[in-house]
Amino acid sequence: MFEKVLVANRGEIALRVVRACQELGVPAVAVYSDADESALHVRHADESVNIGPPAAGKSYLNAGGIIEAAKEAGADAVHPGYGFLAENAAFAKAVTDAGLKFIGPSAEAIEKLGDKSAARRLAREADVPVVPGSENVSSADEAVDTAEEIGYPVMIKAAAGGGGRGIRVAENEEELRESVQAAKREAQSAFGDGTLYLEKFLAGPRHVEVQVMADERGNAIHLYERECSMQRRRQKVLEESPSPGISREVREKMCEAAVRLAREADYANAGTVEFLVEGDDFYFIEMNTRIQVEHPVTEMLTGVDLVKEQILAASGEPLSLKQEDVPFVGHSIEFRINAEDPENDFMPSPGEVTFLDVPGGPGVRVDSAMYQGYKIPPFYDSMVGKLIVWALTRDEAISRARRALREYRLEGIKTTISLHLRLLEDKAFRSGDYHTGYLEELLDE
Amino acid sequence: MFEKVLVANRGEIALRVVRACQELGVPAVAVYSDADESALHVRHADESVNIGPPAAGKSYLNAGGIIEAAKEAGADAVHPGYGFLAENAAFAKAVTDAGLKFIGPSAEAIEKLGDKSAARRLAREADVPVVPGSENVSSADEAVDTAEEIGYPVMIKAAAGGGGRGIRVAENEEELRESVQAAKREAQSAFGDGTLYLEKFLAGPRHVEVQVMADERGNAIHLYERECSMQRRRQKVLEESPSPGISREVREKMCEAAVRLAREADYANAGTVEFLVEGDDFYFIEMNTRIQVEHPVTEMLTGVDLVKEQILAASGEPLSLKQEDVPFVGHSIEFRINAEDPENDFMPSPGEVTFLDVPGGPGVRVDSAMYQGYKIPPFYDSMVGKLIVWALTRDEAISRARRALREYRLEGIKTTISLHLRLLEDKAFRSGDYHTGYLEELLDE
Repeated sequence: MFEKVLVANRGEIALRVVRACQELGVPAVAVYSDADESALHVRHADESVNIGPPAAGKSYLNAGGIIEAAKEAGADAVHPGYGFLAENAAFAKAVTDAGLKFIGPSAEAIEKLGDKSAARRLAREADVPVVPGSENVSSADEAVDTAEEIGYPVMIKAAAGGGGRGIRVAENEEELRESVQAAKREAQSAFGDGTLYLEKFLAGPRHVEVQVMADERGNAIHLYERECSMQRRRQKVLEESPSPGISREVREKMCEAAVRLAREADYANAGTVEFLVEGDDFYFIEMNTRIQVEHPVTEMLTGVDLVKEQILAASGEPLSLKQEDVPFVGHSIEFRINAEDPENDFMPSPGEVTFLDVPGGPGVRVDSAMYQGYKIPPFYDSMVGKLIVWALTRDEAISRARRALREYRLEGIKTTISLHLRLLEDKAFRSGDYHTGYLEELLDE
Repeated sequence: MFEKVLVANRGEIALRVVRACQELGVPAVAVYSDADESALHVRHADESVNIGPPAAGKSYLNAGGIIEAAKEAGADAVHPGYGFLAENAAFAKAVTDAGLKFIGPSAEAIEKLGDKSAARRLAREADVPVVPGSENVSSADEAVDTAEEIGYPVMIKAAAGGGGRGIRVAENEEELRESVQAAKREAQSAFGDGTLYLEKFLAGPRHVEVQVMADERGNAIHLYERECSMQRRRQKVLEESPSPGISREVREKMCEAAVRLAREADYANAGTVEFLVEGDDFYFIEMNTRIQVEHPVTEMLTGVDLVKEQILAASGEPLSLKQEDVPFVGHSIEFRINAEDPENDFMPSPGEVTFLDVPGGPGVRVDSAMYQGYKIPPFYDSMVGKLIVWALTRDEAISRARRALREYRLEGIKTTISLHLRLLEDKAFRSGDYHTGYLEELLDE
């Protein structure tokens, strides 16, 4: 096991990693910017190092400074959390080159899976279905041929794009020819690369992802799926497991496909394979090579501590469970508590938490970076906590969630708790029948 | 389902019941003494009624006042929690006579099981082993005959006694004859009743109890056992499940015996059947006819919400699970957080909680009546919260407990957290090999 682990992150995920280290008996070193001196992850870590000014570029994204802090503190491993440098292959390589262990997959795996075309190729090789479409198209004629093959409507995407930028939808040949010209120009000017590719347009897909975990000895398992279709501006708002929208057969096939992909990529450590689902068809979209915000949902159902599992795997230990021994009991829902004002277009609402009473009792888990008197700084992501509930059935989990969200007393800032309470009453949510576009439609009303 | 439930208690258990009501969609009415106006159970209840001055005899033990409050609030059911009036048959009867539903067993069952001799008889009828011994003995000769049957050493107990008062141990006939005379006199003067009975003396027994749950339709199940041998002055300090000291065969037999007893007593609602265990032998000692402090340990392993199950059963619903569908996964430990100073003979330490940071993250549950700024009143029991941890294995649960107890930041009062941290390092606790006298021996050192 490691001598000491440096946690290269802040907020609730940094605290989450500190907890995992402490349960494993490994001292955890926190890093913090000038804005985070009194943050909870610093308070609970065994030691801490200031890494610079509030601007993330000069602190939490400063790879060199973080590696230096790790060496000074005598850490022999670095856990990146999510966000910041977590999927930065160069950082993973720099950590390794400095003689430290990066708690995550290899830099090669991060790089390979971070490139969307390469990841799609890998998926095809592993016999994992991808959204029907082309590799790249170089002309309008080629695009039309491809569209006729996969069927209209189609999406035109920039190969170098991401985060939904530069995506167009064409219903027929005429629209496609127009879109290809415009998209090419746009991609050229936005990304310096006009390469395009086509994909079948899915009208109301669900976003379902599979948690995988692999050790460095060639063992890989899945820990079932998470339903993540409740999104606003492509940000997940709440997540649940099991997905209320897939059958047992689809679950089985999707989970097996995820493990096949992990094996094909020689993947080690925790990862998430994301799929779009329409009816009984599922299509690989990408693999996230890190722990996810919504990992607690999986922990509630399986009892497996994914962050400890990450640390153990990185230290060379085998997986602690075999596939057939992974429990999958009950139903869990996670609610992201953001310091935002849902009544005012989700404006960030940093400031002092003047009163805090955190919900408790059966089936309630809180992963939060807050305490009473804490001043939420305005410099970082607005997610300040997560409420996760578990119960034997989905109905009971929903009742428990309503109880716990009402119990959450947070004064001094605005939060998304009111949005969650609204969603719990929503017919589509209650029925389990919602897709990735649903919440935006609801908010538009 | 009920229209409204009055919660006839205070502190963490009152809040626990409020939570259960709210998850079932039933408004909960809190009661409070003048000392509890700003208590958390009052803050989270849907409504609340002042029932008098701080002294429990004039508020939480005032049966008439509580029933009046229930009627005024329009409640149609009363949940007694534990302690106070929870095992008072007269209160259960008065509630029923007032046309309200008592959420617990019938007054008859409470009475029958509250009488130790009657409970032992019932156990014998249900073929549940009791500690070998007599019904009552009326003379020294009779005592000697009985002792020769069950074997020395024996305990001489007052039939009207309780709480360990007036218990003597005799190693041989001579000691027994002396003890009988002295015990008879003492019992006569202490309880106005000189009746004695003998029991086999168990040197280092474990205290293991079985949770049972029965509906009002004749269905009864068990929810496995809890190990409660870590005690100080007959008060449980921490509890865990599964018991590290019994085999699978003993567990099975003991759980079946508990259900047989519940059936024999025509028992409805939640109850706990307590046993002493020595080697592979177990002996019934008593049945508690209420929810127990340590019920969360069972909830963590089974996923069943015992308080909701109590309310559902009282409203006439069938049990929500069959015996064969009760999960029993992982390991759980509960730590009682008392406002007491373990460095100073466990002196109560009421006062203001000036800073509070409650542990969170995976496998951690907190049932607490505290918030930052709360003033713990000096009038009641010193238990102010419970930390419950769960993990797939006992070792992992212990590591998690240590992490969570260290994380618990409570300023302004002394608590038993330091004792628990000490116990987690204790060899006997870690090995699982400890008995009811162990903690006192350790504290004497």
